[in-house]
Amino acid sequence: MMDDTSTTIQDLRAEIYEFNKERDWHQFHSLKNVAASIVIEAAELLEHFQWADVLTPKQIASVTEELADVFIYCLVLADALELDVSEAVRQKLAQNDAKYPVDEYRGRF
Amino acid sequence: MMDDTSTTIQDLRAEIYEFNKERDWHQFHSLKNVAASIVIEAAELLEHFQWADVLTPKQIASVTEELADVFIYCLVLADALELDVSEAVRQKLAQNDAKYPVDEYRGRF
Amino acid sequence: MMDDTSTTIQDLRAEIYEFNKERDWHQFHSLKNVAASIVIEAAELLEHFQWADVLTPKQIASVTEELADVFIYCLVLADALELDVSEAVRQKLAQNDAKYPVDEYRGRF
Amino acid sequence: MMDDTSTTIQDLRAEIYEFNKERDWHQFHSLKNVAASIVIEAAELLEHFQWADVLTPKQIASVTEELADVFIYCLVLADALELDVSEAVRQKLAQNDAKYPVDEYRGRF
Repeated sequence: MMDDTSTTIQDLRAEIYEFNKERDWHQFHSLKNVAASIVIEAAELLEHFQWADVLTPKQIASVTEELADVFIYCLVLADALELDVSEAVRQKLAQNDAKYPVDEYRGRF
Repeated sequence: MMDDTSTTIQDLRAEIYEFNKERDWHQFHSLKNVAASIVIEAAELLEHFQWADVLTPKQIASVTEELADVFIYCLVLADALELDVSEAVRQKLAQNDAKYPVDEYRGRF
Repeated sequence: MMDDTSTTIQDLRAEIYEFNKERDWHQFHSLKNVAASIVIEAAELLEHFQWADVLTPKQIASVTEELADVFIYCLVLADALELDVSEAVRQKLAQNDAKYPVDEYRGRF
Repeated sequence: MMDDTSTTIQDLRAEIYEFNKERDWHQFHSLKNVAASIVIEAAELLEHFQWADVLTPKQIASVTEELADVFIYCLVLADALELDVSEAVRQKLAQNDAKYPVDEYRGRF
């Protein structure tokens, strides 16, 4: 079974790339349009928390879909920019590790 | 070398989880706050395209960082919701595959 | 006829306040929820430009509605914060006037 | 003194228009760029609530500035679309009044 423990970032990138290639949709994926798409989907996700702090089971299913949309557009953008996501995430974590030392920032930020 | 071809989604999830656990920061990560964080970081990414359609080399570095931030908060949310990202993405692709048949939607949407 | 030349900011604030008061909806309008609502409606507006730079006539009607929603939540927030919008806007314009002198910034930013 | 009780929507529109005209900045204000700007500024406003539900006095000053930015871009968009804001807001309130009758929606939504 393929799940997060056996799926690499590149696996998902390739599946998303193939989906768009089959439809000849990369022509619509300017960096700006994809960046806008990430915000738009992220706001749809936030909409489930607009008036509430917790989710109903039905909302959890919707939020899962919206989160998938955000991921998909993020991976489309990573492809378009030819950047390695895991490297970008690790560099950011390393930066944050230096910026927020554990001893100083435990329980606060 | 660890890159997108050798890094699983779970690898990144675990590294991010550890970063936050060391700092006892999960207490701040209500679903609503994390959902808001995804939008906030996505908008910072979009800001680089506010008045332009293309990026300078310096902006590419910044956009890479903002994209890492979006990914990080997405994976924090996936953890908080205990959902499998690769399954969510594949279900969404399958849904979109049914909704947008290749023959009908090639080159249009 | 009441239009933008004869309607004061306070006129709109009062009409929106009354709408919410009649429904006893102010209890839901925490600052955080209203701030989230502004982003959510703004992203719905942006959605019309997700894949295009121009609007169809039908989209213009939708965009007008989304823009009204953004305005409404902005005025709800101004009420909740007891701040004067026209003063805030004029202070910001004065700041920007000092920051971007006309001679230096004509045609560039 | 000019405040929300004496300032019309058109007064603010005209002041903002003049600010941009002096700098020849309307050339940058495509509908899409302005729509993106509204989201970007709205997300900066939301950022103050990212980890908290209440604001410090210093944050109130910043939120006031961000709210002014959202208003300014909304009025730039209204100008670009040649639409009357007060009419749009009143139409939306009338729609919502029909959609959410007072008797049925008091205290709930």
